[in-house]
Amino acid sequence: MQKVLCFGEIMGRLNPKGHLRIKQAREYELSFAGGEANVAVSLANFGCEAEFLSKIPKNDLTEALVRDLKGYGVDLSNMVYGGERLGMYYVEKGASQRPSTVIYDRKYSSIAMAKRSDFDWEKIFEGITWFHFTGITPALSDDAALITKEALMKAKEKKITVSCDINYRGKLWTTQKANEVMTGLAPYVDVCISNEEDAEKVFGIHPEGTDITSGSISKEGYESSARQLMERFGFEKVAFTMRGSLSASDNTWAGMLYDGKEFFHSKNYQIHIVDRVGGGDSFAGGLIYGLISEYSNQDAIDFAVAASCLKHTVEFDFNQVTVKEVKTLMGGDGSGRVQR
Amino acid sequence: MQKVLCFGEIMGRLNPKGHLRIKQAREYELSFAGGEANVAVSLANFGCEAEFLSKIPKNDLTEALVRDLKGYGVDLSNMVYGGERLGMYYVEKGASQRPSTVIYDRKYSSIAMAKRSDFDWEKIFEGITWFHFTGITPALSDDAALITKEALMKAKEKKITVSCDINYRGKLWTTQKANEVMTGLAPYVDVCISNEEDAEKVFGIHPEGTDITSGSISKEGYESSARQLMERFGFEKVAFTMRGSLSASDNTWAGMLYDGKEFFHSKNYQIHIVDRVGGGDSFAGGLIYGLISEYSNQDAIDFAVAASCLKHTVEFDFNQVTVKEVKTLMGGDGSGRVQR
Amino acid sequence: MQKVLCFGEIMGRLNPKGHLRIKQAREYELSFAGGEANVAVSLANFGCEAEFLSKIPKNDLTEALVRDLKGYGVDLSNMVYGGERLGMYYVEKGASQRPSTVIYDRKYSSIAMAKRSDFDWEKIFEGITWFHFTGITPALSDDAALITKEALMKAKEKKITVSCDINYRGKLWTTQKANEVMTGLAPYVDVCISNEEDAEKVFGIHPEGTDITSGSISKEGYESSARQLMERFGFEKVAFTMRGSLSASDNTWAGMLYDGKEFFHSKNYQIHIVDRVGGGDSFAGGLIYGLISEYSNQDAIDFAVAASCLKHTVEFDFNQVTVKEVKTLMGGDGSGRVQR
Amino acid sequence: MQKVLCFGEIMGRLNPKGHLRIKQAREYELSFAGGEANVAVSLANFGCEAEFLSKIPKNDLTEALVRDLKGYGVDLSNMVYGGERLGMYYVEKGASQRPSTVIYDRKYSSIAMAKRSDFDWEKIFEGITWFHFTGITPALSDDAALITKEALMKAKEKKITVSCDINYRGKLWTTQKANEVMTGLAPYVDVCISNEEDAEKVFGIHPEGTDITSGSISKEGYESSARQLMERFGFEKVAFTMRGSLSASDNTWAGMLYDGKEFFHSKNYQIHIVDRVGGGDSFAGGLIYGLISEYSNQDAIDFAVAASCLKHTVEFDFNQVTVKEVKTLMGGDGSGRVQR
Amino acid sequence: MQKVLCFGEIMGRLNPKGHLRIKQAREYELSFAGGEANVAVSLANFGCEAEFLSKIPKNDLTEALVRDLKGYGVDLSNMVYGGERLGMYYVEKGASQRPSTVIYDRKYSSIAMAKRSDFDWEKIFEGITWFHFTGITPALSDDAALITKEALMKAKEKKITVSCDINYRGKLWTTQKANEVMTGLAPYVDVCISNEEDAEKVFGIHPEGTDITSGSISKEGYESSARQLMERFGFEKVAFTMRGSLSASDNTWAGMLYDGKEFFHSKNYQIHIVDRVGGGDSFAGGLIYGLISEYSNQDAIDFAVAASCLKHTVEFDFNQVTVKEVKTLMGGDGSGRVQR
Amino acid sequence: MQKVLCFGEIMGRLNPKGHLRIKQAREYELSFAGGEANVAVSLANFGCEAEFLSKIPKNDLTEALVRDLKGYGVDLSNMVYGGERLGMYYVEKGASQRPSTVIYDRKYSSIAMAKRSDFDWEKIFEGITWFHFTGITPALSDDAALITKEALMKAKEKKITVSCDINYRGKLWTTQKANEVMTGLAPYVDVCISNEEDAEKVFGIHPEGTDITSGSISKEGYESSARQLMERFGFEKVAFTMRGSLSASDNTWAGMLYDGKEFFHSKNYQIHIVDRVGGGDSFAGGLIYGLISEYSNQDAIDFAVAASCLKHTVEFDFNQVTVKEVKTLMGGDGSGRVQR
Repeated sequence: MQKVLCFGEIMGRLNPKGHLRIKQAREYELSFAGGEANVAVSLANFGCEAEFLSKIPKNDLTEALVRDLKGYGVDLSNMVYGGERLGMYYVEKGASQRPSTVIYDRKYSSIAMAKRSDFDWEKIFEGITWFHFTGITPALSDDAALITKEALMKAKEKKITVSCDINYRGKLWTTQKANEVMTGLAPYVDVCISNEEDAEKVFGIHPEGTDITSGSISKEGYESSARQLMERFGFEKVAFTMRGSLSASDNTWAGMLYDGKEFFHSKNYQIHIVDRVGGGDSFAGGLIYGLISEYSNQDAIDFAVAASCLKHTVEFDFNQVTVKEVKTLMGGDGSGRVQR
Repeated sequence: MQKVLCFGEIMGRLNPKGHLRIKQAREYELSFAGGEANVAVSLANFGCEAEFLSKIPKNDLTEALVRDLKGYGVDLSNMVYGGERLGMYYVEKGASQRPSTVIYDRKYSSIAMAKRSDFDWEKIFEGITWFHFTGITPALSDDAALITKEALMKAKEKKITVSCDINYRGKLWTTQKANEVMTGLAPYVDVCISNEEDAEKVFGIHPEGTDITSGSISKEGYESSARQLMERFGFEKVAFTMRGSLSASDNTWAGMLYDGKEFFHSKNYQIHIVDRVGGGDSFAGGLIYGLISEYSNQDAIDFAVAASCLKHTVEFDFNQVTVKEVKTLMGGDGSGRVQR
Repeated sequence: MQKVLCFGEIMGRLNPKGHLRIKQAREYELSFAGGEANVAVSLANFGCEAEFLSKIPKNDLTEALVRDLKGYGVDLSNMVYGGERLGMYYVEKGASQRPSTVIYDRKYSSIAMAKRSDFDWEKIFEGITWFHFTGITPALSDDAALITKEALMKAKEKKITVSCDINYRGKLWTTQKANEVMTGLAPYVDVCISNEEDAEKVFGIHPEGTDITSGSISKEGYESSARQLMERFGFEKVAFTMRGSLSASDNTWAGMLYDGKEFFHSKNYQIHIVDRVGGGDSFAGGLIYGLISEYSNQDAIDFAVAASCLKHTVEFDFNQVTVKEVKTLMGGDGSGRVQR
Repeated sequence: MQKVLCFGEIMGRLNPKGHLRIKQAREYELSFAGGEANVAVSLANFGCEAEFLSKIPKNDLTEALVRDLKGYGVDLSNMVYGGERLGMYYVEKGASQRPSTVIYDRKYSSIAMAKRSDFDWEKIFEGITWFHFTGITPALSDDAALITKEALMKAKEKKITVSCDINYRGKLWTTQKANEVMTGLAPYVDVCISNEEDAEKVFGIHPEGTDITSGSISKEGYESSARQLMERFGFEKVAFTMRGSLSASDNTWAGMLYDGKEFFHSKNYQIHIVDRVGGGDSFAGGLIYGLISEYSNQDAIDFAVAASCLKHTVEFDFNQVTVKEVKTLMGGDGSGRVQR
Repeated sequence: MQKVLCFGEIMGRLNPKGHLRIKQAREYELSFAGGEANVAVSLANFGCEAEFLSKIPKNDLTEALVRDLKGYGVDLSNMVYGGERLGMYYVEKGASQRPSTVIYDRKYSSIAMAKRSDFDWEKIFEGITWFHFTGITPALSDDAALITKEALMKAKEKKITVSCDINYRGKLWTTQKANEVMTGLAPYVDVCISNEEDAEKVFGIHPEGTDITSGSISKEGYESSARQLMERFGFEKVAFTMRGSLSASDNTWAGMLYDGKEFFHSKNYQIHIVDRVGGGDSFAGGLIYGLISEYSNQDAIDFAVAASCLKHTVEFDFNQVTVKEVKTLMGGDGSGRVQR
Repeated sequence: MQKVLCFGEIMGRLNPKGHLRIKQAREYELSFAGGEANVAVSLANFGCEAEFLSKIPKNDLTEALVRDLKGYGVDLSNMVYGGERLGMYYVEKGASQRPSTVIYDRKYSSIAMAKRSDFDWEKIFEGITWFHFTGITPALSDDAALITKEALMKAKEKKITVSCDINYRGKLWTTQKANEVMTGLAPYVDVCISNEEDAEKVFGIHPEGTDITSGSISKEGYESSARQLMERFGFEKVAFTMRGSLSASDNTWAGMLYDGKEFFHSKNYQIHIVDRVGGGDSFAGGLIYGLISEYSNQDAIDFAVAASCLKHTVEFDFNQVTVKEVKTLMGGDGSGRVQR
């Protein structure tokens, strides 16, 4: 059985209940979240062996975090404890024409201020067959970028499959910096997860025959972006999510997988949203599950999109669905009929 | 004035708030529900004399149940106290592509383990003019089926009108068992409430000219099922609900009433759902109200469908609407304009 | 910089959480609201100098009210303290076919029972350049109508711009009484805010070429109503909101501004509603903001409609949006994409 | 079996959760309460036939009230519907040195503005054997005092036992007015429930040999007050509660019953308070229960004090205890050991 | 390092928030609890290797249970999945003179209906050095008693230390049945945890020189009971908890350990209670921790009592304290000073 | 009228509801707090002109903070906006033997990283007559200490009275560093607020004739510490709080004021605690109020202690009491009788 190591940041997530704005709220729900932690939880919920690695301080707040992750069965045995703070972020759920907004308070966190000596990759990679990170990890700090590079080099050496969700965050770094750093990391990546927007921002890849300002990209545009990504960096697979934002309450959601030969497109779901934060990560989780389960390319992208479609109906970042639930939706039953 | 006795199971209902999944939830809302109790509450809210009969243990939890039902004005004067437990069920509200799910913990309840000697039907039926039960009651146990049969025989003897909502529950019995038992009870029923799916499952009635796997049944298909039901059992009236599950958040909802001569079809509502559990029971409640109020067949089915349409916008199983509110919707005002 | 004085009633607002009906609810959320207070808060949130004037008793409940308004930066320096009670109202949030409903308990409030001697308009109007009231204020009592008249006469004398939102409330007075009183006040008004329904009810103005019972009014009908209003009372500007009630969950929302020469129509938004109470007031707030900011007529109506569109996604009566957020929507971005 | 009619005011009660002050609170719990309604609920919970009579408006808020009372089994069959408003009051729970506070908004309520023609006492008293009111009812308005007088005269005529809890409320009337009105009503009363403070305020009765300003009244002082009350008005029984306010969190609580011959003193409980509002009413409820159950004087006062001691541990005004629970405490078990 | 296996029942626990009674409550908090599971969680929180074994059904409710236990680090690798239901219990928190009450709905649970073939003790005991159960496990059913016996025999064979908390539950079995079954199991037990009341009820052991009805047992009485227990069954150690119930809000709490030679008494704590359910189990957890950590007898009993003293300040059954926190209290600091 | 400027840190405060531990909690209440902000709010609630000055980032979270403070009437007109983050802290409410605990996440906050150029003291001090800070401000960073020093020099120059609450925080700096910095600031202080423990830790002042480890300091010990403080730094007044921690639920609370001639001791209150965080700050607020109101020394200390006694019964850091409420308690009424 494969074992997937997800490496990166984890934060406390605070959101007002329901549709209250942060300006108004006096009560917050606390959960935990992070691009890579979200993937680890998805995988654990699918029954995979998943490990999450980060650096967090040791206090009662991170005790809650540790309990949460361990509860899902995520392995934390290499977690590094130390540093000064756990990053936090505040989510305000949008509705209709009002967008969701996020306030990040992630600077100076233990993981952002971690040093290379905190991580002994030789030991960490014992028993690991797949390594996953996102573009957020190297964006946290120069040290974090170095640590990531070091991890990737060791992973390559150990023939560990590497997946990366490009995940550009404009509040963490500039497109220039992202380009420079990610260009150095991309060659180590086997499975690249992205969307056309991040491909453009981070790697300057422009979908051919598409006017991005029009808001609507043709199927050919997506395929062009994916093909260029693969050609430039030699990925084995490139997967794209395609979100259509009708409003903060209703989105369309689809995905595409490219193996260098063929493009595999999923169904396009129309979703009435409960909580869309973490949607992209649940796609990555679903995709990795499909690939390590040796699904066909079509099944893998269908599973990834169905899993992440369901995530949009689940509160908080962590996806809470089983393989069976995903397969029911993949199989075409999106009617939401009561199960009794 | 007519007095309706509803006989069957009542359970505690526990659901997480909002859209949280049971896996995640630490806070639950407690209410009470049951196929026949829901009808009794609907009727009491419409101003009818309604009695509910079951067997429940005597403790502080059922004290809450009793207060709830008595608060609506439901008569509990023949309630049997005893046995070991109140059945419970857990509801998880779905959204979009994620279906609502239900976990039942109803086995070994006082009503499921009740004996014939618990019920003195001669005394119970004093002053009663209408008797309502659902297919859930005889499914609870062999004893419950016997008790139901005994009640029906006595009802017939006393010329009490009998209505039955077929309500097949696959977790309680097989279609074979259901067929056998319900075939023995159906001859006592005057008003049969069902849908084409349960008619098929319980009585093997197949809508003519319809491919049920296609998911879309023609008007003729529904009419065929209803006609067959009536022909087989000699019902006076057959009423059908027709639900279209667009998603867990949005459904269509309509109904049909057949009096052996004509088919009366209601309007088809498109509903953005607050809570759909209890929707079918609120249809039965509305229909019985219409019939005992001597509404025309068209008005009765329109009232039943409008009442149950509104139930989908009401939290918990019990419908919370007045005759006036139902009539406003029946009259065509579904605009939801603020009333001030 | 202009300073806007909003004069009228303010109430405590109590609503059950979520979609619970008042019949069922045991927990209520308390906020504060009132046709003119809502406008003052909108303006303060847009960065304007806004004052609110009313009469309220002095107790811990109104201490909460005062803190709330002062928190937004609304000036309360002329607030009159005294009388016996704060009006209250209960809001039940509708859904789909079930309309929202409101129970008012506003009679005998301090402001309804205020006397002319409570208000020294000479002093109150110091530094004020704009005066806003709604048709609710004179409807509260004969004294309130007299006080309003007195304020208007003084405002005119001081060349203060006057805006009025007609806001007919059938539970407060009859159309006859409203017609009589409002006809006496209208001549003092510069900017009239209304809709075709209130124009009809209060002033008997019938949109030409429109059958109001059909539920759909043509663009020409709205323009006809606005033109007649302006002609009769000599307003400088007439603004209309146009709400289409698809259901209690979904509305369309648009507006129109008429300057005596041209009609300026906004975009028509389709809104999935969080809380629609206070929607009209947020339109008035947005319009006044646009006008005192010397926006073009087109921009003013676009701003007013976008601001009030967003209000429908915000809990409670007070709008919680900034100029920047309104401008983003005005600029065409209603996609609700997460901002991070 | 005796049937007790409790006549008076009922209000909505709103309190912030926990120990939040009204100034801070945004969430309120709604319950219902009133001096006489509280007694009716106590009696119904003890298994007595209890009726409550008042005048309330008809709306969804009072529908909640009606459901609540009917849930306890309180008979509302003579309830008068009409008038404009339900009185409300706001409770802030004190703690330690900070007292609980109450804001009343009860003026202009339907019951305060009721007329004599609203009540047909001949019909109301059918089947009634005991009539209970408090000093709050005649304090509501002159009409309410007249109605009470009329009820008392009819009760006397019908040989119905009358109990009255003096319950002086300084915010409703002056001691002069109270003295004048209550002196007119007292002769109709058989069982007078009071404390030494109200005896002093309403009837000017001073405990002999006691300096009331010292805060500590001797046993003889209480007995002197009770004896004077009985002598002046010819009551059959006089019952006193004796509260010692150590702090808002901790009180002592005892009672005394005088039958004209002997003084019966209860045990003195030390109570850690959950909610003390309604404590006095639960004493009256317990006492009436004891008397109609023909308990000995000692048992009656012990039952009344134990019942009301337990009320201090119960949230909201309505006492929630059974005869069995009261008897367990009367019997000496106040250890609070878990029952399992 | 030792590894402790705790075997027995686990239930869902539902309690109203705060001090609401079950009769009144509509919102419940869900947690999980059980005499042996509570011990496993205590041990895991102290950093021990702890395993919990039971039989539970497989559904989303038990998924929540599994996540909860795994979050604490409790090993569930031998958990048996199957059967029909998870036992539930309802806790109502008492206050002052009102006792806490518990409604059990544990009958027919998967563990109560488990069969011997469900458990392969040879495999289960791999790596286990300590086995813990309570008197609740054999009380669940005859099968459960047989399974327990089988486990004890295998444990003895493998020289695993056995601890047992006598924990008599009158709602599960009679004292006669308890005596019979427990007398058969006691010879396998090394460490017996009890109190004088259960020693009397289960084994008929009467503290010499003590009148148990007086409510106050002398130190000598406790010592006599413990000595008799040890003499009869040959335990290595006997530990007693001593609770003094001043009221439901305030208790005293102490413990005693007897090694056959000396009696070790802890300090006696006076506790203002947050939640006392699970208090005894947290004592067992603390004691086992002390013993496997090879604390002195005095330190072991001091640790056990301090740990369980702290449990009374923690919501829900599971104790939430660290070794460091317990040691701080053991060390004498019970002042509750803020740590900052 | 005097105007008091309070300068220092303000943080978001997050605490679980009730007595939940941080390890367990998923819901948090958000409020705002800080040693100096707490004083400003106390003063505003007493009707004083109070200004609060800090540096905070500009986002929706601080918008909530700004609304909160402005709601109390605290002047924020010199607030500096900028920097990266608002400090946060997490409070866990203790009970009985379990202490309250606090997790600080205040590092790198805007105020901790503020520069001298952020504050133009000449302008800031316009209209200010009293300046208050605590020992937390200079402890935040070296820059913060420099800024404080600069403020004090300017205050002295402008003859502004300066008060300082020593408030040693071991997690922010060492006693050595505190001694060094505070020794440089103390000469500018007129009114020094402290307790014997901080006097010892920061200034090495040992109460004569007292063994601090005994936990009980004699009256003479406190007086000795205060006298030494005054002698060393030439304060005009020294005020001490004296807390006795019986447990986390119950404390004693008193104060002492020394004017260089006489010692004025307050009453000693025994408090059952609702929330003790912010208790010391409410003492400072009360004392400053007394002093600027030109109370006698005895009245000033009595007011300060009564005000802060009441704070212990109020949720969150900000005290919520009026002058009238404090005077009622000062006047001796701590009985907590309901006010109605």
